[in-house]
Amino acid sequence: MSETTLPAPLTGIIPPLVSPLSDRDTLDVGGLERLVEHVIAGGVTGLFLLGTTGEGPSLSYRLRRELVDRVSRQVNGRVRLLVSISDTAFVESLNMARHAADCGADAVVAAPPYYMPEGQPELQDYLGHLLPKLRLPLFLYNMPSLTKVSYELETVRWAMGQPGIVGMKDSSGNMTYFNRVREAVSARPAWTLLMGPEELLAESVLLGGHGGVCGGANLFPRLYVELYAAANRPDVHRIRKLHALVMRVSGLIYQVGRHASAVIKGIKCGLNCLGICDDFMAEPFHRFRERERALIASAVSKLAEELDEQGVGTRRS
Amino acid sequence: MSETTLPAPLTGIIPPLVSPLSDRDTLDVGGLERLVEHVIAGGVTGLFLLGTTGEGPSLSYRLRRELVDRVSRQVNGRVRLLVSISDTAFVESLNMARHAADCGADAVVAAPPYYMPEGQPELQDYLGHLLPKLRLPLFLYNMPSLTKVSYELETVRWAMGQPGIVGMKDSSGNMTYFNRVREAVSARPAWTLLMGPEELLAESVLLGGHGGVCGGANLFPRLYVELYAAANRPDVHRIRKLHALVMRVSGLIYQVGRHASAVIKGIKCGLNCLGICDDFMAEPFHRFRERERALIASAVSKLAEELDEQGVGTRRS
Amino acid sequence: MSETTLPAPLTGIIPPLVSPLSDRDTLDVGGLERLVEHVIAGGVTGLFLLGTTGEGPSLSYRLRRELVDRVSRQVNGRVRLLVSISDTAFVESLNMARHAADCGADAVVAAPPYYMPEGQPELQDYLGHLLPKLRLPLFLYNMPSLTKVSYELETVRWAMGQPGIVGMKDSSGNMTYFNRVREAVSARPAWTLLMGPEELLAESVLLGGHGGVCGGANLFPRLYVELYAAANRPDVHRIRKLHALVMRVSGLIYQVGRHASAVIKGIKCGLNCLGICDDFMAEPFHRFRERERALIASAVSKLAEELDEQGVGTRRS
Amino acid sequence: MSETTLPAPLTGIIPPLVSPLSDRDTLDVGGLERLVEHVIAGGVTGLFLLGTTGEGPSLSYRLRRELVDRVSRQVNGRVRLLVSISDTAFVESLNMARHAADCGADAVVAAPPYYMPEGQPELQDYLGHLLPKLRLPLFLYNMPSLTKVSYELETVRWAMGQPGIVGMKDSSGNMTYFNRVREAVSARPAWTLLMGPEELLAESVLLGGHGGVCGGANLFPRLYVELYAAANRPDVHRIRKLHALVMRVSGLIYQVGRHASAVIKGIKCGLNCLGICDDFMAEPFHRFRERERALIASAVSKLAEELDEQGVGTRRS
Repeated sequence: MSETTLPAPLTGIIPPLVSPLSDRDTLDVGGLERLVEHVIAGGVTGLFLLGTTGEGPSLSYRLRRELVDRVSRQVNGRVRLLVSISDTAFVESLNMARHAADCGADAVVAAPPYYMPEGQPELQDYLGHLLPKLRLPLFLYNMPSLTKVSYELETVRWAMGQPGIVGMKDSSGNMTYFNRVREAVSARPAWTLLMGPEELLAESVLLGGHGGVCGGANLFPRLYVELYAAANRPDVHRIRKLHALVMRVSGLIYQVGRHASAVIKGIKCGLNCLGICDDFMAEPFHRFRERERALIASAVSKLAEELDEQGVGTRRS
Repeated sequence: MSETTLPAPLTGIIPPLVSPLSDRDTLDVGGLERLVEHVIAGGVTGLFLLGTTGEGPSLSYRLRRELVDRVSRQVNGRVRLLVSISDTAFVESLNMARHAADCGADAVVAAPPYYMPEGQPELQDYLGHLLPKLRLPLFLYNMPSLTKVSYELETVRWAMGQPGIVGMKDSSGNMTYFNRVREAVSARPAWTLLMGPEELLAESVLLGGHGGVCGGANLFPRLYVELYAAANRPDVHRIRKLHALVMRVSGLIYQVGRHASAVIKGIKCGLNCLGICDDFMAEPFHRFRERERALIASAVSKLAEELDEQGVGTRRS
Repeated sequence: MSETTLPAPLTGIIPPLVSPLSDRDTLDVGGLERLVEHVIAGGVTGLFLLGTTGEGPSLSYRLRRELVDRVSRQVNGRVRLLVSISDTAFVESLNMARHAADCGADAVVAAPPYYMPEGQPELQDYLGHLLPKLRLPLFLYNMPSLTKVSYELETVRWAMGQPGIVGMKDSSGNMTYFNRVREAVSARPAWTLLMGPEELLAESVLLGGHGGVCGGANLFPRLYVELYAAANRPDVHRIRKLHALVMRVSGLIYQVGRHASAVIKGIKCGLNCLGICDDFMAEPFHRFRERERALIASAVSKLAEELDEQGVGTRRS
Repeated sequence: MSETTLPAPLTGIIPPLVSPLSDRDTLDVGGLERLVEHVIAGGVTGLFLLGTTGEGPSLSYRLRRELVDRVSRQVNGRVRLLVSISDTAFVESLNMARHAADCGADAVVAAPPYYMPEGQPELQDYLGHLLPKLRLPLFLYNMPSLTKVSYELETVRWAMGQPGIVGMKDSSGNMTYFNRVREAVSARPAWTLLMGPEELLAESVLLGGHGGVCGGANLFPRLYVELYAAANRPDVHRIRKLHALVMRVSGLIYQVGRHASAVIKGIKCGLNCLGICDDFMAEPFHRFRERERALIASAVSKLAEELDEQGVGTRRS
């Protein structure tokens, strides 16, 4: 593995960056640039590219490479860059890992292979084969609702003993699991533990987590950045205020659609309403139609006001 | 869509061809050639490439293309060729579909995109976008245990009205579902309905299914070909004899391993025991170790004898 | 265990008898009497009381006892009587088993305790504690979608070696599982293996099953009795005709409601349309409202005609 | 509904009381008395009888009634008494509710009927039928892993508008769900929201929950009582210390067994090691054998020391 200046642990808010598209296989280049500046201005400490919110697995490999290339050049070291190499094919994970390293990313991120349902010993073998071939540190990405297979506790404990594995993003939504991992992490102070679902950011940081990979931080980065800071101090009064706003975002933006795609569609549509980027979505999803869009537009402007009242809005003073 | 000589419906046994590997990204070329001849000699009517048993999603795209290219040249029209284009990325599905058409395959096969959990209307849109871009007829591949999303009845009924969709392979293992699809198919006599799990081949054909995509037909193609024929006549006495043998294969070969990979590992190991091809497996799986291999070797030789007694063995008279 | 004249194996159709209610805790006594005569006239070989279709777990214990008492006196040995003792509380299972024996039932039937999720060794211990306290032979009832816990193959094999356990009803809908159990049963010719879902009756009997516990046999007993007979001969032409009708019943009657209760509601409503009994349902269900009822009424009369055409209707010649 | 002095909301720790047994259908009367005094001495505000940890559904109705009767007489108003009336049969729920009211309990608690899988409208009808027949206020008990059916948000919102429903215990372990319910509760300040899994107690109270129904409070009531108090102040430093101990209890006591019964077995065995009560368990579970018991004994004594160090142990000063 090459030298890295990745903080250990990595803290703060690292949005799973939306991938702005103007067509099925075409980046919305201007939108992408605006989005990156928007979240960096909001105080995030890193970007996570090609994750679930970034529709990574739905994009062609060509487009995935272009996105990593463009973002890394734009970011230019201002924040940390994490790139998903999650794939069903080991060789394609390696190809993407090589590209990420070539572009100067700081780390790669791997969920369990998501077609074949491997057992935990097979998953450890898989990681064991992957590690010596990586030039960047590796984060685990626990996302059992989509990958079917979870990084079970035994595997996480094993991973903590592997030099190349430096942390984990847990999107299981299972706080008992998260608590157990956090307990194990307490013996590895350099290991990073990040929360996926933003509804659980406050409590996870209060109890020792290092930050969050919050989808909503694409829209309202300062809200999550300030909530992280309040939880880190900790300032429980402030936490409660901001946590309530996070729940408002979740309630107003993520439950408009009917299917599991509702969260990603809501965020992308919201970004469009904010004038940041196109809301074209890669198959098998499609952008919200008029009815849903009107709900999102109204929610976004209502939320923007409420956020401004708490000083975590997008309006710069 | 180009002209096709695909039978409508397509009947008989179409093995999901194992992908013989000599290393992570290297085909076992000799093994692949022997395997193709082995199953054609056994009387199969087609080959299904890059399916689950073929470890399709675990292989690099380069290797997937090489495999389709080699098999299509070797087969040279002797049996029908179906190629999986299942993918999480629409554009990559199209790339593979183009390659399959260029190689002269007879049809392509698509499972629902298996990372993002699309709703049924989204799935219909997805197919609706795919169809006009395909040069070959399309089979649906229902495999909910691995793709999470199923082709639900409403979507199958919709698909039956789409000119480019010519049939379905159902690997749900849910016979009530299969029976309902079969009922709907009775209004579309050209539509093909194939059974995935070989343990259900006999009954599905008895009740109107058109054939099977039987993993075990890699090992013992004549067993499944003859069982199909017996069910098609129908000859219930013969069915019971051969079905019992199919259950023996299932019991002795597919339950040696502990994880969900047990079926594929068992078949690939059995092929190696038969001297047909290497048993190297793509990550996240690995070949059986000595203890399991000894069990498979003994099972294969026991089964070979029992099959010979019924005249469905590999011994040529 | 007391003497029993239970056939070994028990064959044919054993409807899971609907429990006609005129109010939450009141039997529709006249309806119950008509229903029992209706199914006996249709040629069933037994009755299964207090199962899922009979809403057993939703009834008060007092009413359960009354029902067993009344039916056993009415049947008076004309067909076999099986009584569910499935419960979350061991002592209540014993109480019901004692009552069933006192009433002269032929066997009791037990699903795994359905609140606490026991492991398979715990389930075997449970049966091991139950058996010496039973005066009647025991059938296992495999219904994992409702009990969460399944009788896994290891436990079924263990059960086949227990003198007091004489058979099994499998409502898993998993034909691969059923096929494996059937294979194991081939070494125990006296052991009974019955199919739950009627959509799978034909194929299960063709491949060696002994009969079916078909909910639809409450409505149209002769259809299932004749399909069983055709599968037992076997007469594949006749099977296909009658199986198609079974699928029609399933399609027209069981899919009117939206929730999992649709099957039971459909049957009870259909019985009411046939003038056999009240369609009051125990909480947490309620009878169909007008819109659904109209659909069921029309389906029942359409089906009655189609059944008469095949000579399996309710019209006596 | 009769007059009640139930605090609104009800706060603090309400242990799901273990049901000490000396045999399958015999209470360990002395053990029960010691246990009740043990937890009251630890500062709990209420007791929840016949829940999952209390093995309620596994006990005979006779024994359930005896337990409610004895505990209510012993408690004699010193803490609040909540009694589970969860059942598959509506009439039996009513019987138990009547008995609870007769014994002077403060509230009854109902999970969704756990055999038949009702839809949410059916579940609302069910509650709507139940409410007018209850003499005590009702708590909802959300426990989807065991009941299959969840109180979904729409139903919880509906329930908040029903005068007789005064609160909820959420054992889903899903903090996003809990957070959404809590948000809805903010408009109903008298409504009680209690957390089930003790691993989530700290964060739930920090973010506005009212207390916990912590299984571990049978063993170490003061730990949970003090953690509740710290979270309520809030004192984040103290929370972290005590939360780490709660995770230790969970790690050392609840993961000794292999099956889902591990938590209940661990608690009951631990109580026996503490000399409080018998560890006999109702079927389908059984007490730990020697190997597991030795692990629990050692864990209990280690934990007792660690708790004493933090001043939340069982040792009275």
